[in-house]
Amino acid sequence: MYKIKKLDRSQQDQIIGNIDQKTKPQGALGQLEGLALQLALVLGSKNAGEQQGRLTQVESIQIEQPVMLVFAGDHGIAAENISIAPSEVTQQMVMNFLQGGAAINCFCRSNDINMEVIDAGILLPIENARLTQQSLGHGTNNFVREAAMSKQQVEQGLQFGKKVVEKHIQNGSNVFGFGEMGIGNTSSAAAILSSITHQPIENCVGRGTGIDDEAFARKTRLLKQATEFHKQRLAEHYSEPIEVMSAFAGFEIVQMVGAMLAVAENQNIILVDGFIATAAAMLANKLYPGCRDYMVFCHQSDEQGHQLMLKHLSAQPLLNLGMRLGEGTGAALAMPLVRAAASFYNDMASFESAGVTAV
Amino acid sequence: MYKIKKLDRSQQDQIIGNIDQKTKPQGALGQLEGLALQLALVLGSKNAGEQQGRLTQVESIQIEQPVMLVFAGDHGIAAENISIAPSEVTQQMVMNFLQGGAAINCFCRSNDINMEVIDAGILLPIENARLTQQSLGHGTNNFVREAAMSKQQVEQGLQFGKKVVEKHIQNGSNVFGFGEMGIGNTSSAAAILSSITHQPIENCVGRGTGIDDEAFARKTRLLKQATEFHKQRLAEHYSEPIEVMSAFAGFEIVQMVGAMLAVAENQNIILVDGFIATAAAMLANKLYPGCRDYMVFCHQSDEQGHQLMLKHLSAQPLLNLGMRLGEGTGAALAMPLVRAAASFYNDMASFESAGVTAV
Repeated sequence: MYKIKKLDRSQQDQIIGNIDQKTKPQGALGQLEGLALQLALVLGSKNAGEQQGRLTQVESIQIEQPVMLVFAGDHGIAAENISIAPSEVTQQMVMNFLQGGAAINCFCRSNDINMEVIDAGILLPIENARLTQQSLGHGTNNFVREAAMSKQQVEQGLQFGKKVVEKHIQNGSNVFGFGEMGIGNTSSAAAILSSITHQPIENCVGRGTGIDDEAFARKTRLLKQATEFHKQRLAEHYSEPIEVMSAFAGFEIVQMVGAMLAVAENQNIILVDGFIATAAAMLANKLYPGCRDYMVFCHQSDEQGHQLMLKHLSAQPLLNLGMRLGEGTGAALAMPLVRAAASFYNDMASFESAGVTAV
Repeated sequence: MYKIKKLDRSQQDQIIGNIDQKTKPQGALGQLEGLALQLALVLGSKNAGEQQGRLTQVESIQIEQPVMLVFAGDHGIAAENISIAPSEVTQQMVMNFLQGGAAINCFCRSNDINMEVIDAGILLPIENARLTQQSLGHGTNNFVREAAMSKQQVEQGLQFGKKVVEKHIQNGSNVFGFGEMGIGNTSSAAAILSSITHQPIENCVGRGTGIDDEAFARKTRLLKQATEFHKQRLAEHYSEPIEVMSAFAGFEIVQMVGAMLAVAENQNIILVDGFIATAAAMLANKLYPGCRDYMVFCHQSDEQGHQLMLKHLSAQPLLNLGMRLGEGTGAALAMPLVRAAASFYNDMASFESAGVTAV
C-alpha cells in the first residue's frame, strides 16, 4: 500500500564533510549536527529523486510550511474511569483547538507552524467548517472485552491519514508534526507498547495526565486483563501491527500511522511528539521499518512508558521538559531546533570562507 | 554599586492560579510552567515598580526585543598550549561574528534575536564599526603565574558590562542572552568554579571544545598549579568574587558579570548559556545572591564542570543537546522556549473561558 523508499545515503559523507567544515570544532553542536545530517539526507534524497536519479551535492536544507496535524478520537476504555476526565472532554478540547485556545495553538503560533484538526472518531461530533471530518466512528469499542475496531476500520483509518498528508504535500509542506487528543489514549498506547515489544504491561502503564493511585491500580489491572485477552485471542498474530491496531488502537492513532507513512513515502520529515504519537510511530515502523529514517523524535514525555518506546526505536529525543500533555506540544516546541539545524547547515561559514584556522 | 531588588513574590499565588486554570492538567507543561512563573514574576515585578508600588495582577508576559551580547576576550594562559586553537582564532571568530557566519549568528537570525559583539579585550584588535570597543587590554595575564588582571580592571570591566546593557534597556529590550568567545576560557571558568565552590580542580576541568588526552593532562596539571598558587597568595580571600575575577577571569567574563548584574538591577531576564557564561552567573550571584531569580538556565553543556555549576546554582537547564561551543548558542536556542512559555501564559484559554470541564 505504501512505497517507503530506503533513504539514499550516497551523499552522506559529503554532508558530514559540509558540517565538519563549519566554523566550530567537530561535534560541538551536539544533537543538532545529527539532526542537520538527517534533514539533509531526507530532503536531499527527495530532490535527487526529482532530478531523475542524478545526485547533486546537498547544498542546503529547505524547510517548507511546517504543519501540525492534530487527530482526535475517543476510546471505549474511557468508560472504565481510568482517566482524569470523561470522554466529553475530548469534544471540549477539540472545540478549544478550533477556537485557538489550547497549548498546541499557542505553540504553533509562537513557532510559525500551520495547524489542522481532524475528527478521527470522537464520541460527540462537532459541526465546524474548520474541523476536518474523517470520523471512523463515535469512539472505539472498549478493548478490555473486544477489539477496539475492525480491520476494515484500520485500513480506512490508514487511508484517511494518508489523504490529509497528501493535501499538504501538494501545498508544498515538507515537515509534519503529529499531535492527538483522546481521553483514554494513554491506555491504548500502553497496550500497543506492550504488544509490540513484549514488555510486561506493568512497565508500560503510566499516570497519563495525572491519575491518582487508585485509578492507576485500576488502569494497570484492566490493561493486564485486556492484553491477556487479546494475546489469547490472537495467538501468534498478537504482535502483527494490523492486529495490534485493531485490538488496542484509537481512531486517532490509526490515522496518525497512515499519515506518518504517507510523509515517509513522500520523503518528508515526521516530527514525533510524545507517548501516543510515538505509539503510532512504532506501528508505522513495524509496518515499514524504512520510515524510521524520516522521523525526528522531538521530546521525552514524563509518561514512564515513553522511555521504553524511544529505546525500542533507538531514538534520542531533542527535548526533555517533563511535559505530559500530548496535542503535539512537544513536537511544536522542537520545530525551532529543526529550523536552527537547517540554519547552521545552510548559512554558517566554513573555515575556508571565513578565514578561520581549522581546528 | 548595583541595587538588585528582591523579587516581588506577592503575586506568586495569583500567577500560579492563572497557570493552573489553563486548559491542561496541572503541571502538564513541565518546566515551561516554572519558566512562565519566573517570567511573570520578573517582568511583573518591574511593572509593579513602575506603578509606584501598587501591585496589579500579572495579566501577561511581554517579551521585548531579545538581545544576545557576545563578549570576546583573550587569555594569557592560552600560551601554555592547552586549547585546540591558538589565540589568533579569537580574532578570526570575532570577524566571523561580524560577518554573520558563526553558529550564534545563524541561531540569532533563526530565533529573531538581535546580536551585539563586544571586544572586551582580545589579543589582536579589530577595526570595525559594528564591533563595540570596550577592551580592557590585549588578553589577560597568564594566571598560572600571576593574577589574570588587576582589581581596577575588574571594576572597569563590570562598568563596561553595565554600560552595554543599559543602552539596550533604553531601547526597550527586556531579555538578554550572554555569549562569549575566547580561546582558553574554559580554563578560566574551571578555576572560577573550583575557587568558588571549593571543588578539587580535577572535577572542574574539561576538554573544552575537544582537546586530546595529552593536552587535557597538561591543562589539569597547570590549573592545579594555578589554583594552588592563588590560594596561597590570597589565603582567606581566595573565594571572594572580586579576588576570584582578578585571579582567574577573562575580560569577557568580567564584562558578562557586570552586564548580568545590570540586567538583574533593571529586573529583566538573563539567559545563561554554557560553561563560561555560567561561571559569570556564579560570580554575579556570589556578589549579589538576589540576581539568581532573574536567570534562566538555557542549556547543559557537554563540558563536565558545567553540571557542578548548575548544581551549585540549583538550576535545571531547559536544553541538553550535548553542545560545547559557547558563543551564546545554547541561550539562543532556548529563546523559543521562553517565547512559548509567554505564549501559553498570555493566550491559552482557561477551563472557564473555553467551557472545558476542569481536571
